[in-house]
Amino acid sequence: MKAHKITYQPIGTVHTPFQDIRGMPIQPSGASGIRGTIEIDSDFVLGLKDLEGFSHIILLYHFHQVRESKLLVIPFMDTQQRGIFATRAPKRPNPIGLSVVKLLSIDGNVLHVENLDILDGTPLLDIKPYVPEFDQHPANRVGWLEQARGMVVNKRSDARFR
Amino acid sequence: MKAHKITYQPIGTVHTPFQDIRGMPIQPSGASGIRGTIEIDSDFVLGLKDLEGFSHIILLYHFHQVRESKLLVIPFMDTQQRGIFATRAPKRPNPIGLSVVKLLSIDGNVLHVENLDILDGTPLLDIKPYVPEFDQHPANRVGWLEQARGMVVNKRSDARFR
Repeated sequence: MKAHKITYQPIGTVHTPFQDIRGMPIQPSGASGIRGTIEIDSDFVLGLKDLEGFSHIILLYHFHQVRESKLLVIPFMDTQQRGIFATRAPKRPNPIGLSVVKLLSIDGNVLHVENLDILDGTPLLDIKPYVPEFDQHPANRVGWLEQARGMVVNKRSDARFR
Repeated sequence: MKAHKITYQPIGTVHTPFQDIRGMPIQPSGASGIRGTIEIDSDFVLGLKDLEGFSHIILLYHFHQVRESKLLVIPFMDTQQRGIFATRAPKRPNPIGLSVVKLLSIDGNVLHVENLDILDGTPLLDIKPYVPEFDQHPANRVGWLEQARGMVVNKRSDARFR
């Protein structure tokens, strides 16, 4: 039996300095100090109550420029094909992005954030508070990424995942 | 302008011991040792290549038993109403769940995992490798959850988010 389709509606839009996928940081840890804003649709502003108490927030968003999915990709930090689920590359069967950013302030329906590795105009699906007690895990194996440790800070995107 | 709707299709199903939302752990840190499996649809198995090298994986899934969204909720670990985006509660405008679980092994299209805080039969949307370098952030403020530190390990769900 094929699973049913699931439909979501964006709750807002991410505004960043990145108009083009080329040259972008590939993770928030490579986007230190990059500021932008998140504009929440007025229908959802009430849901932002109490969020300001958190220093970091998890953003889930739709990789809106992805036109196709691929099950094998050559990631930015590698030269070999890897399974898409073993990478953070955008061309996923369900192209959902996850970034943890620093929350600077909230001004009505606008969130000011830092450490953005997200393309301008990206539709936002969800915001969750980042809580070290929930979100930090003692991972001791990072597979093919072991060899890439430290590279992410300086690595920039090219057009391969457009 | 209203944003367009976004449609996803599950890539598999999560199998866990939890048939009912009542009595469930509310975060993976309260689900230590709880084992289950993830069955990936055959169309997507190729994307699992290289995943076995990672000790922990991020699961994104659809809270399939949620029937409505609420912008204000009283979380399990509080007695006051909080904005939904300042909580991890399921009744979100887009009911996407996020859990980091321990990956024990992969057997064809079946992943054996541990620390599951997910309802049986949950449709899976995405798997990403958990990478401390990307996923651990120096969060120094956790808002209303400050008072709840340590509670999550023993707290169990009731039916309020059905």
